[in-house]
Amino acid sequence: VSLDRTVRKGARGTVFLVGAGPGNPELLTVRAHALVTSARIVAHDELVSEAILALVPQGAELIRVGRRRGTSPEAPAMHPAVLARALDGLDVVRLKGGDPLVFGRGGEEAEQLDALGIPFEIVPGVSAALGAAASTGIPLTHRDAASSVTFATGHGRHDPTGSPGGGTIVFYMGLATLRETARALIVEGRDAHTPVAVISHATLSTERTVIATLDAIADAVESASLEAPAIVIVGDVVARRVVPSAAPDVARPVTRSRRVP
Amino acid sequence: VSLDRTVRKGARGTVFLVGAGPGNPELLTVRAHALVTSARIVAHDELVSEAILALVPQGAELIRVGRRRGTSPEAPAMHPAVLARALDGLDVVRLKGGDPLVFGRGGEEAEQLDALGIPFEIVPGVSAALGAAASTGIPLTHRDAASSVTFATGHGRHDPTGSPGGGTIVFYMGLATLRETARALIVEGRDAHTPVAVISHATLSTERTVIATLDAIADAVESASLEAPAIVIVGDVVARRVVPSAAPDVARPVTRSRRVP
Repeated sequence: VSLDRTVRKGARGTVFLVGAGPGNPELLTVRAHALVTSARIVAHDELVSEAILALVPQGAELIRVGRRRGTSPEAPAMHPAVLARALDGLDVVRLKGGDPLVFGRGGEEAEQLDALGIPFEIVPGVSAALGAAASTGIPLTHRDAASSVTFATGHGRHDPTGSPGGGTIVFYMGLATLRETARALIVEGRDAHTPVAVISHATLSTERTVIATLDAIADAVESASLEAPAIVIVGDVVARRVVPSAAPDVARPVTRSRRVP
Repeated sequence: VSLDRTVRKGARGTVFLVGAGPGNPELLTVRAHALVTSARIVAHDELVSEAILALVPQGAELIRVGRRRGTSPEAPAMHPAVLARALDGLDVVRLKGGDPLVFGRGGEEAEQLDALGIPFEIVPGVSAALGAAASTGIPLTHRDAASSVTFATGHGRHDPTGSPGGGTIVFYMGLATLRETARALIVEGRDAHTPVAVISHATLSTERTVIATLDAIADAVESASLEAPAIVIVGDVVARRVVPSAAPDVARPVTRSRRVP
C-alpha cells in the first residue's frame, strides 16, 4: 500500500500562515515563494493578487476565503475548510495580503490552530505600507520629518493616532472612510495642511497615487476615482517623497501612472 | 574594444536600496535575493546578517558601511564610496537591515541620489518587527488587544507613543535604552503590568526571547544578557502569543532557545 506523504492517519497537516506581501510577486519572500509554488492546497483572501495566485501549481486546490456571507465579524477568523483539511492530515498554505500579523487576523487564526493541536508556521511578509512607501519613494520615518510610524485602520477609533506633533500615520483599508478619518485627525489637532498620499494597488502595474493636503485629500481621491485596496500615508514624510528613477534596463516590470496635484 | 556592460562613460550606475529583512536569508524578498546573488558591488551595514552576506557572489566588492568614526549624525546618510561607484557608472546594491524606509535613513539616501542624478530603486523588506512577531507568534494587532501598532526607536523622544490606552508599540534598537523607555512609558500612563517581549537576533538561529511586565523587563533582560540587535514589543498583544509549532519536517532551519519567565 503506498501512502500519500501528506496524508497521515490521525496526524494533522501543517498550516502555513504566509504573508503574500503588497501584491507584486517579486515582493514575496523566498520562503513564501517556495511554499506557494509547491503547495497542494492554498487558501487566500481577496487581498492576494492574481499575479501571486498564478504561481500556485496547476491542480492545487484553491480555497477563496473572504468575509463569508452571513458571518459576523465575531465569527472565528479561520475558514472552516482550512481547519478541515488540516485535521484530515493535509498541509495548507494560508496566504494573506501583506503580513499575517498586521491587520491580518493571523493572531486569532494561530490561537484557533493551537487550540485544535494543528501545527503551524508563520511566515512574515512585506506589509502593504512598506510596499507602498518603497514604490512611491515616501520614507515612513525620516530624521527631519518623523521619528515614528503608526499603522492603523480606517475603520475604528483613532485614539492611538491622536498625537498632534507626532509621527507618520498609515491607514490600512482606509479608502472608504477617508473623509471621516481626515476630519477626525484635524479635530484631534493635526495641521489641515499636513500632506497625505493615497496609493492604490501599490507595487502592481495598476498602481496610482494621489497626493493632497489633509483637508483636500478626500475630494482629490474622489475625483481621481481611486480603487481599493489603498494605503493612506499621513505626515510630513509625504513631502520628502523622492520618486525612484531606476534605469529602464533594471526597472521592475511594472508601469505606473501617478496623479500628483 | 569590448565595453563592460556596467561601465558606461558619462552614465551613472544604479543604486538599489534593498531591504535585507530581519536576518534569515529565506526572508529576503525574491527581488532582493535576485539582486544580492547577482551583485558586483554590495554595501551593507552591521544589521545585515552573515547568512545573507554569504549569498553575495565570490569576487564581488563588499563595502561595509557603518557609523563612520569621526562622522556626526549630521553627516550625509549615504557612504561616499557608494556614490563614487555609482558616479563611475557601476551598479551598487545597498543592503539595509529590515526595510529601507523604516529607521533605515533610506529616505535621506534617496534624496542624495536624486540630487546627484543617480538612478535608484527601492526594494522593500520585511521590517525587523514583522520578523520578530512571526517568529515568536506575537500578533502586532489583534481584534481584542490592539487596533494599531507604532514603530519607534529607543533613543529619542517618546511623545508619539504616549497614548496610554493605546496600541502596540515596537521599539527598534531599543535594548540599550530599555530601562529609560520602560520608565518613561509608565510615567506617560502605561500600566506597569503591561507585558513586554524583547526578541534578540529575531529569525536567526541565535534568536532568544525574554518576556516580562513593563516594570520588570529591564532587569529580566539584563540577567538574561540579551544581545543587540533586539526588538522590543510592548502591549497586551504579547499575552496573545501563540508559539508556532510546525512539524519538524517543515520547520525552518533555525533553532531557538527562549527564556520566558
